[in-house]
Amino acid sequence: MENPGCTHAWRTLAEKPRTMLVNFTKMVVKLGKDDPRRIIHSFKFGFALVLISILKYFRPSFYAFGDNIMWAVLTVVLVLEFSVGATLGKGFNRVLATGSAGALAVALRKIASYSGDKGKLVLTSVTVFFVAGTVTFMRFSPRLKARYDYGMIIFILTFCLVSLSENSENDLLEVAQERLLTIIIGSCIAITVCICIFPVWIGQDLHNQIASNVVKLAEFLEGFRDEYFNNLENTAEAENDKPFLHRYESILSSKTSEETMAVLARWEPCHGRFRFRHPWNQYLKIGNQIRLCAYKIKALSVFLLRSDTTPYEFRSRIEEPCTNIIMESVKALKESSVILKNMAKSPMPNPHVANAKNAAESLKSVLRTNPWEGADHLEIIPVATVASLLIDLVFCVEKICEAVDELAN
Amino acid sequence: MENPGCTHAWRTLAEKPRTMLVNFTKMVVKLGKDDPRRIIHSFKFGFALVLISILKYFRPSFYAFGDNIMWAVLTVVLVLEFSVGATLGKGFNRVLATGSAGALAVALRKIASYSGDKGKLVLTSVTVFFVAGTVTFMRFSPRLKARYDYGMIIFILTFCLVSLSENSENDLLEVAQERLLTIIIGSCIAITVCICIFPVWIGQDLHNQIASNVVKLAEFLEGFRDEYFNNLENTAEAENDKPFLHRYESILSSKTSEETMAVLARWEPCHGRFRFRHPWNQYLKIGNQIRLCAYKIKALSVFLLRSDTTPYEFRSRIEEPCTNIIMESVKALKESSVILKNMAKSPMPNPHVANAKNAAESLKSVLRTNPWEGADHLEIIPVATVASLLIDLVFCVEKICEAVDELAN
Repeated sequence: MENPGCTHAWRTLAEKPRTMLVNFTKMVVKLGKDDPRRIIHSFKFGFALVLISILKYFRPSFYAFGDNIMWAVLTVVLVLEFSVGATLGKGFNRVLATGSAGALAVALRKIASYSGDKGKLVLTSVTVFFVAGTVTFMRFSPRLKARYDYGMIIFILTFCLVSLSENSENDLLEVAQERLLTIIIGSCIAITVCICIFPVWIGQDLHNQIASNVVKLAEFLEGFRDEYFNNLENTAEAENDKPFLHRYESILSSKTSEETMAVLARWEPCHGRFRFRHPWNQYLKIGNQIRLCAYKIKALSVFLLRSDTTPYEFRSRIEEPCTNIIMESVKALKESSVILKNMAKSPMPNPHVANAKNAAESLKSVLRTNPWEGADHLEIIPVATVASLLIDLVFCVEKICEAVDELAN
Repeated sequence: MENPGCTHAWRTLAEKPRTMLVNFTKMVVKLGKDDPRRIIHSFKFGFALVLISILKYFRPSFYAFGDNIMWAVLTVVLVLEFSVGATLGKGFNRVLATGSAGALAVALRKIASYSGDKGKLVLTSVTVFFVAGTVTFMRFSPRLKARYDYGMIIFILTFCLVSLSENSENDLLEVAQERLLTIIIGSCIAITVCICIFPVWIGQDLHNQIASNVVKLAEFLEGFRDEYFNNLENTAEAENDKPFLHRYESILSSKTSEETMAVLARWEPCHGRFRFRHPWNQYLKIGNQIRLCAYKIKALSVFLLRSDTTPYEFRSRIEEPCTNIIMESVKALKESSVILKNMAKSPMPNPHVANAKNAAESLKSVLRTNPWEGADHLEIIPVATVASLLIDLVFCVEKICEAVDELAN
């Protein structure tokens, strides 16, 4: 006879791994769908490592130095990154840091070799302590960290390895040469695989992200107009079903990622429509202006949530100038986004900005006539605030368009 | 005779390295002054490496395996981080990943050894390709990346090294054992140095940062009151000299760093007043509420810049209720910050929140009476917007205090 409680317990026990597996599969599928280049990158990674292992069979002489294969693998695993910029930056850092740290360590060992055994121990310890401590301290500098963090770690590592190695000085030079060569070959394989097989240009990504952020702002404004100036009562409840009202929120915390992308983009050679010294800093400026605009929008969105407490009648009295401001701002933003995407030169200042400014002026004159004469003052203040924030928003949009024009020229 | 142009050129040439050196020294001094723990960390780093090099002289048998010293150095350099949480996380990741990847690779080699030489080459390549590719793909998952990114890199590395190594299977087991032991010893040295010499607890840092962010909001509000409700004309010009009006801006982009800190804090054992399973997620919730408040403040600060366009007379008519709101909000925030800092239990809901809400109600009733009767409607809208944003701010402050109370209980 079956014990139903026991069966149930078994079933729950068997259920848990199944749900975990299902969740895991879902996550994997989502990761791949969100950005199919991730799948390609994984293949590239595997391929680069197989390349090294095959190289070993075809040119065993190259790996005669025993553990050298390890250095090639280490280099590929640590250097090959998702984007070309990151890979080039790390490869450059690795080769330069290995070379300079190795040379410094060999020179210091030469000096130390003139003192006796005890002197050598003391000298080695002192130099390791000071070099490692100094470089570690340097890593705290945000500017150096952004570009050379990886190089500084490798510098400490190589310096310590060469300083503490047991080999004699002559052996050491040979080992160091071989190892530097292996690291250069490993870096070359990583860079070649990264650039030649479906390269991911982080500069292009930054470019696209900034352009799509501009569109996100425009989408919110369009959605805001539709929601705020309609006569339906269900605005607040249905708000969760409207993703365009939340899509801009990713902009609020995009500062760090944009800055990282700009640093990495600087390592990339000219590709597509990007020159070598593309003005990546200008993208950061545009990004900052977009974020300032997003903060305003965040303040605006509160009034959308509470719009059902303000009678539609009051909202409708400033509907026309507000709609004009929004429409012209949206057009200006979309045009800026197109200029950005196509990297076109803008023949003249964005005409929609001027229109938006005119609309703001006409909103001001409507406000001056006191459109809510006789209404409860408290009830109209939220509407007045929306009007005031929208007027303010035109400045932000103007700044974004100016920054885009500056980049285009 | 001297050539004055040449002398000038020489002087400029000699000047450049000098200014660079001066700038560099300034940067170093600033880095140390901003956080003196950085200097201590640099000493700790040097000390840990010296420890390893000394260990080598005292217990040469341990390093008999030739390159093992390298693995100890590698482990210390890569595992020893500024904070205890990061070091423990990396040490744990390193040991676990090395162990599991090594075991998997040895097992797969055993299987591959039954096929011939060619079969072995193919099998090795295929497993390297698939394991490296799969783990690389896993690294794209934000949840796994936050906690196990380092472990996943080490997993790929160890797996490839063991798979591609030239040693025979029996040698390999011995090498693997030795190496795992070296890595464990390296991790132990790194962790011991990190915890025993002036430890930096990242949980404590997160705790302090959240508490100081609450104070930054309060400081801005106090400054806002002093600036906005005064009768001086020079508000906008002198604004640059008032750092308290800009200090809150660091909050706007603090999301990523707070999340990283919370992840690392989870690795830390109980220390000071923090238990092992301290509710770090609650800190993130408080941080989010603080950020929402900071976005509002960003919108508010625009009106401070333009306050000179609004006659003081209009501002003064709502001065009393606005000042009350601000004062009570400031008190509420400061009390929350004290509760946070002392990790005290709050005996009852924050009384200042209720006061702030009452002040908001009285501002509403002042607004209802139309305090600016007869004034130009356009001129009063900025003031009305400030009033409206302040009323809104009370909700934000309430949410922050609620989140802090929840943590305290």
